[in-house]
Amino acid sequence: MTDSLCARRLERLRRRLRQAGADALLVVHRPHLFYLTGFTGDAGILLLGTEQAWLFTDGRFAFQVGQELVAGVEPVVVRGPLLRAVGRHLRNQPVRRVAVETAYLSVSQYEQLQQATGHRVRWLKAQGWIEAMRRLKDAAEIARIRQAAAVVDRVFEEVLPLLRPGVREVDVAAEVEYRMRRHGAQGPAFETIVAAGRHAALPHARPRAQALEANQLVVLDMGAILGHYCSDLTRTVYLGRAPMRIRQWYRAVRQAQQAALEALRPGVAAGAVDRAARQVLHRHGLEKLFVHSTGHGIGLEIHEEPRLGRGQRMLLRPGMVVTVEPGIYEPQTGGIRIEDDVLVTERGAELLTAAPRTFLEL
Amino acid sequence: MTDSLCARRLERLRRRLRQAGADALLVVHRPHLFYLTGFTGDAGILLLGTEQAWLFTDGRFAFQVGQELVAGVEPVVVRGPLLRAVGRHLRNQPVRRVAVETAYLSVSQYEQLQQATGHRVRWLKAQGWIEAMRRLKDAAEIARIRQAAAVVDRVFEEVLPLLRPGVREVDVAAEVEYRMRRHGAQGPAFETIVAAGRHAALPHARPRAQALEANQLVVLDMGAILGHYCSDLTRTVYLGRAPMRIRQWYRAVRQAQQAALEALRPGVAAGAVDRAARQVLHRHGLEKLFVHSTGHGIGLEIHEEPRLGRGQRMLLRPGMVVTVEPGIYEPQTGGIRIEDDVLVTERGAELLTAAPRTFLEL
Repeated sequence: MTDSLCARRLERLRRRLRQAGADALLVVHRPHLFYLTGFTGDAGILLLGTEQAWLFTDGRFAFQVGQELVAGVEPVVVRGPLLRAVGRHLRNQPVRRVAVETAYLSVSQYEQLQQATGHRVRWLKAQGWIEAMRRLKDAAEIARIRQAAAVVDRVFEEVLPLLRPGVREVDVAAEVEYRMRRHGAQGPAFETIVAAGRHAALPHARPRAQALEANQLVVLDMGAILGHYCSDLTRTVYLGRAPMRIRQWYRAVRQAQQAALEALRPGVAAGAVDRAARQVLHRHGLEKLFVHSTGHGIGLEIHEEPRLGRGQRMLLRPGMVVTVEPGIYEPQTGGIRIEDDVLVTERGAELLTAAPRTFLEL
Repeated sequence: MTDSLCARRLERLRRRLRQAGADALLVVHRPHLFYLTGFTGDAGILLLGTEQAWLFTDGRFAFQVGQELVAGVEPVVVRGPLLRAVGRHLRNQPVRRVAVETAYLSVSQYEQLQQATGHRVRWLKAQGWIEAMRRLKDAAEIARIRQAAAVVDRVFEEVLPLLRPGVREVDVAAEVEYRMRRHGAQGPAFETIVAAGRHAALPHARPRAQALEANQLVVLDMGAILGHYCSDLTRTVYLGRAPMRIRQWYRAVRQAQQAALEALRPGVAAGAVDRAARQVLHRHGLEKLFVHSTGHGIGLEIHEEPRLGRGQRMLLRPGMVVTVEPGIYEPQTGGIRIEDDVLVTERGAELLTAAPRTFLEL
């Protein structure tokens, strides 16, 4: 994270602060701390004033905070609960109206804070302020997601030969995550899914110590974190020669994904992209088997805005990065999901993942 | 998770509920959902009434919830936000006083819930109810932590030969996590730490794409999740023949750990264990370099109760499982930490990790 990026983000956030009539903002969500200050420690609270800013952390991160923190944010290393220290600090500052991230502050934390500051402080809600900034990725962020996408493409190609009867789901997953790291990822963005046969009917299946068998669908869903940014790729293959019905289902899911990709462009509502995928599956009589949304934003987190789900009215804009991942699930047969990462551009959309989408019968 | 364990836990929790004069409890924290119902999905809310119980989830987990859920809890698969569905459900139930997990419910979620239920419901705080149960591990839980501890012991032994100049930190970390999975772990309990030289002065260092060098300290901190339960092991080695000062420091940390282990027994306050370690480092003039607590509980989460920190008054009891991990950190030299997992028994404490604690000069 370069200092100038963080500085620009802090400046934008301060404008938001002033618009809301607040004297300060408390930031507690970890991805937000990194986004705004470069700090990656496990424990931190940012107090952003209109002129000054402080990052509170504990002794474990005393050296780290010095190395990571952007200029203009002062580290404060405290003993004991961070919120108590923040509360004490607030008592001594000329601030009256403090905005808090209500989506990430727990009810207990909020009460602690109120107790620590007393009645002097009035609390405002900061809802979606930083999320709105994070929705639109800048060039540096897009470059990282591109790299993270290249890693999963490469890993998929490398582990394809492993997908054969006798190999256990957990071993494929271990291989996937090992190779991600060897290719420069910090680690997986989520627990890698390797799900064969009926187990693939669970969209979020956990890999089992069970061997793949012939004549099964296998769903492989993997994400890499690289430079703090996530990618997310799903491919579904068949071990053997697939029955006609499975081929037709695969074709339907692929068409649904294609329709969603074609609908993806600036100015379109997120819900319209979901509808495009859903309509295709409806025509094939498979809509009821499509039990989740069409996609979600990716970035510092594996699930972020916008959500490509039913009725979502958020308009797509250039710089948004989303997954497009229709899937169908049927308890007796398993599941089929095809997922790619897509950047919304000025003119339409650009695929960031490139693994082949043809139906592989291995 | 066997049904009878969950059933017993739900029964205990219902007693707690009645004592607090509540008609129902909302559980939102994921480890708690698993602990009480066996459900492992990413999205779920448990509504525990005095007679009935419901687990709300979304379409992605429709099949999974049927497979995992303990008897006596009814799955409710909803479209749209879970909290809204829970709120609507509450309106139609004869409940007036509902307890919520204020430590895990965000301020925004709490407001959503209040809006959805209207004024009919009075809200109570459920603070530490489930945590208090989770502190004391039963035989099945201890067996799993034991297995998770055996995995990290084994992985440490296997990766020792990798610790030599020229091997990158990230590659050691990749190897560690790969081997965990091969030995039956679901994955790492946290991002594996491999930190050499000055980088080891960060207690929570992230592995870098930088090669180990001769004449460096290397800190290796790894945890495995097995059957949903965590282990946590740290060893520090030296690449080459260590200077006298480093050997003395290592000996001091080892003595501090030994003192803490000897202090660990039922009836002792958690803070007394921390003090035992701190006093040893104080005698060596190293206390200021010990920037964190002596340990923390492990279980379904990598950090849970009790905390072995300054002034912690919680009394240790048989069935608690904690880490004991004094460490010292100095920016020019790096860091030294020795960490083991320990079960509090009727008579004292039992080490669950067994990797050698002698100072290895490789």
